[in-house]
Amino acid sequence: MSRESERIKEGDKILLFWDQRRQWLLDVEEERQFHTHKGVVKLVDAIGKRYGDTIESSLGLFFLILRPTTYDLLGHVARPTQIMYPKDIGLVLLKLGLSSGKVVIEAGTGSGAMTLAMANAVKPDGHVYSYEIRSIFRDSAKRTLRRAGLDEYVTLEHHDAKEGFIQNEVDAALIDLGEPWAVIPQAWKALRGGAPICSFSPTMNQVERTVVSMRGRFANIQCLECFIREIRAEEGKMRPATVMTGHTGYLTFANKIYPSSEDQVSADHAETFNQGYASNLRL
Amino acid sequence: MSRESERIKEGDKILLFWDQRRQWLLDVEEERQFHTHKGVVKLVDAIGKRYGDTIESSLGLFFLILRPTTYDLLGHVARPTQIMYPKDIGLVLLKLGLSSGKVVIEAGTGSGAMTLAMANAVKPDGHVYSYEIRSIFRDSAKRTLRRAGLDEYVTLEHHDAKEGFIQNEVDAALIDLGEPWAVIPQAWKALRGGAPICSFSPTMNQVERTVVSMRGRFANIQCLECFIREIRAEEGKMRPATVMTGHTGYLTFANKIYPSSEDQVSADHAETFNQGYASNLRL
Amino acid sequence: MSRESERIKEGDKILLFWDQRRQWLLDVEEERQFHTHKGVVKLVDAIGKRYGDTIESSLGLFFLILRPTTYDLLGHVARPTQIMYPKDIGLVLLKLGLSSGKVVIEAGTGSGAMTLAMANAVKPDGHVYSYEIRSIFRDSAKRTLRRAGLDEYVTLEHHDAKEGFIQNEVDAALIDLGEPWAVIPQAWKALRGGAPICSFSPTMNQVERTVVSMRGRFANIQCLECFIREIRAEEGKMRPATVMTGHTGYLTFANKIYPSSEDQVSADHAETFNQGYASNLRL
Amino acid sequence: MSRESERIKEGDKILLFWDQRRQWLLDVEEERQFHTHKGVVKLVDAIGKRYGDTIESSLGLFFLILRPTTYDLLGHVARPTQIMYPKDIGLVLLKLGLSSGKVVIEAGTGSGAMTLAMANAVKPDGHVYSYEIRSIFRDSAKRTLRRAGLDEYVTLEHHDAKEGFIQNEVDAALIDLGEPWAVIPQAWKALRGGAPICSFSPTMNQVERTVVSMRGRFANIQCLECFIREIRAEEGKMRPATVMTGHTGYLTFANKIYPSSEDQVSADHAETFNQGYASNLRL
Repeated sequence: MSRESERIKEGDKILLFWDQRRQWLLDVEEERQFHTHKGVVKLVDAIGKRYGDTIESSLGLFFLILRPTTYDLLGHVARPTQIMYPKDIGLVLLKLGLSSGKVVIEAGTGSGAMTLAMANAVKPDGHVYSYEIRSIFRDSAKRTLRRAGLDEYVTLEHHDAKEGFIQNEVDAALIDLGEPWAVIPQAWKALRGGAPICSFSPTMNQVERTVVSMRGRFANIQCLECFIREIRAEEGKMRPATVMTGHTGYLTFANKIYPSSEDQVSADHAETFNQGYASNLRL
Repeated sequence: MSRESERIKEGDKILLFWDQRRQWLLDVEEERQFHTHKGVVKLVDAIGKRYGDTIESSLGLFFLILRPTTYDLLGHVARPTQIMYPKDIGLVLLKLGLSSGKVVIEAGTGSGAMTLAMANAVKPDGHVYSYEIRSIFRDSAKRTLRRAGLDEYVTLEHHDAKEGFIQNEVDAALIDLGEPWAVIPQAWKALRGGAPICSFSPTMNQVERTVVSMRGRFANIQCLECFIREIRAEEGKMRPATVMTGHTGYLTFANKIYPSSEDQVSADHAETFNQGYASNLRL
Repeated sequence: MSRESERIKEGDKILLFWDQRRQWLLDVEEERQFHTHKGVVKLVDAIGKRYGDTIESSLGLFFLILRPTTYDLLGHVARPTQIMYPKDIGLVLLKLGLSSGKVVIEAGTGSGAMTLAMANAVKPDGHVYSYEIRSIFRDSAKRTLRRAGLDEYVTLEHHDAKEGFIQNEVDAALIDLGEPWAVIPQAWKALRGGAPICSFSPTMNQVERTVVSMRGRFANIQCLECFIREIRAEEGKMRPATVMTGHTGYLTFANKIYPSSEDQVSADHAETFNQGYASNLRL
Repeated sequence: MSRESERIKEGDKILLFWDQRRQWLLDVEEERQFHTHKGVVKLVDAIGKRYGDTIESSLGLFFLILRPTTYDLLGHVARPTQIMYPKDIGLVLLKLGLSSGKVVIEAGTGSGAMTLAMANAVKPDGHVYSYEIRSIFRDSAKRTLRRAGLDEYVTLEHHDAKEGFIQNEVDAALIDLGEPWAVIPQAWKALRGGAPICSFSPTMNQVERTVVSMRGRFANIQCLECFIREIRAEEGKMRPATVMTGHTGYLTFANKIYPSSEDQVSADHAETFNQGYASNLRL
């Protein structure tokens, strides 16, 4: 298979890269000049170059032109609310089984980082219905999605999820709210039987209440936390980074069941039926 | 939006679930009987039920019928080689920017778990070209992909990646081999400029050699390890699980650059240009 | 400084070592024979040897004779109750400031592992007063301490700590009970002003109640969890172990203050006065 | 047992505590005034108070007077070299079996933090011989030890450990140098048979070389890394801290054996004899 080598043109997005602390997501516009600590970069100079080429600043220093992925877009999303980091997002997309064609509900939209990641995962044949009552966040998310070219895959609902989701028989649900237990019953109604839900909460207290609200409605409850550490990879001096993220939040996954399922399960079995007592080493 | 409530029929896949230690991925076939420690389950009894319903065994005990996701398929893939777990797979899919339409190369196929996850991510408009010289693994992967209905999105190449990839200008590359450094130059040729690569290795020594082989060809090198821990969520007794996975492997990410880019970079800048010295707390 | 090379004699303790999974703490007795999967070892053969020498079994295979430390004794203590592992014990001894001359109270004795470690830390001039109402544990601890030659530094009190500690002005307190909050006020009375307390609890719920019970009595509250992972150190194949301990319990440390101290602190200051909001990277 | 309630007097050390970020180790001197962001504190005001009382600043704000432990002294030690944190120090003291009467060698002294902790552990009947060729560090350590009242338990040797330790038949050895392998043979000579050694190194490369240098001289090699995370314990909002230490260094432990021991061990057995292949879940 042979594909054309892409040349950068007006309107394209680039990641102007100095190092991992200093990199910027920019739209290539002929008239635009971007000021950095290492000189001024004229975006017009990027036109006709390839991703992976360098671009020279007014001080004669060279920046890399990299290709932005959705992951980079996530890093550039404003984060006003409960924060899911990429380490959490990747795991959630996988465990919720999101792929093209899937329909997923989300409450709330918050920063829109997760909305963006889910839209990217379910396109072109799927859809995300994301609920957010605070217009400032909804507007910000709308801009983020448009910028990423993913807005056609998302419907931003201006409803309070506590009053119910409009959709039904959806393939998955993501809850990122301060009081998830308040929408668990509503999410249950909106999901297809057996479909997965994920709730993200920073505190153990929130997780505890969420799990209690799942009784009789959800089974196979699994609560996880994900850590990530960077390794400083230098020849002859391989060692981990000295600082790492300690915590973002807990991820609680479960599958919708029917109440009659709960009735049919004996007390003993119900214990393991609903929650993970096994120490799962295949995560 | 209103969708039909799905009823299970012959040929569907179900996840027959007792608890998190005992769950089985099965095809619903009228004639089939499945023997468990809790009795015999006749698959014909699942026909007409909904996902989320229960099914009764010959001993009068109830199992849940859950809906399998690709994540579950990953768990049921034979794992003969270097093992990437779901915790790693989710992060890799996200950082490689895989979504519908992307073209990705992989060496080697190994168990096919990653191949399956990537195929699921790039469908319906993308493609995975996966290289594997050992026919036993290639055949096993073929069966796995067919079972998952994803084989049309994958081409299993019977070539040694060390001799070069057939494709060019691909969007991403995944290397999961004992000696990644041997294929780094070949992966470079096959990638689009600026595009990301990921190499998975269990030992620090492998990572060290891989990073050395990336000089002049790749920048923005970031090496990560991902940990996951389960929380036993019981009301009044919230605590983490007593055992957790200690290690699977290190994930080394980087972006293709052009050699001329390397020449233009001063010695000092090259250090941070190529590798992450910053302790990244936004992972 | 020159010291005599020690030769093993009757009555000495040795660590008969095959590998890290198979090692045994034994008393050298002339008549004794020890049966292993690799043959029978006659303990009389150890007499006259040095620690670090080998000893031959009946099958002609060689075991190492290592020198047991208190750490090894800890590993061989029966563990019936809430379990503090060496990773926790070392940190606690350090943070409680235990050294020769210190006087410490403990409730409950439990397995006696912590009692032993603390006795070893405060000898020869200090003392441990350990409270345990269950005689089976008290008797077991007494044997453990005698075996370790540390019983003279420990008084095993047959009282319910909830009814008060006999001692006062002690240098430190360790609480390892299912309901620590019930003895926090009693521990407060027994401690010197400013002295440290440590409470060990497996669940977050227990920690939460403990911290609430500390209000007005303790400040500088710091709650920690400690993880340890083994690295498999093989030349050319350096990598972490695949499994690790996920959790033992949370360690809550604090210092005794006087109630009048609490009154004098304004509301705002009290928040940070009492609890660690800083992310402490000097742990 | 009844002890007197201690009153603070001239010459005592106090920990003047605002919160966990702002606390100072001070000597109580009548003439001294200590300036803080919350006003000036006159140390004379501490005389006659109890530890756990408050002291008022010139701005009418209250500080706590806490009792400093060796742990606090560690936090206030200048840290110019390879850094062992309290989380590492506690584990090392325990695994090296240090208690009153033990004799331990150390190379190098570095900041003196570990020297101080070890002196505190082996007093009153033991001793620390610490080797440091850089006089600036030796002088700094001398001051630290004197300040802590532990100097009588330490001899600071002005020798290069690579040329040999003066002592022999010591109970334990601690190596904290950039090239540990250079002193491993010397440490072997100085240790009693079967006695433990610990080497602290930040990079995997250092650990690898150290382990190779241990062949034939040491067995039961165990390499560990220790993580610690703070839990923010607020009623109703229990959650871990958002940032944590990612890495300090790896701790490699082993026991001295005699070369003849090595000869007698078969090839197969040697593998497990020398290194920890077991995933040890009792750490």
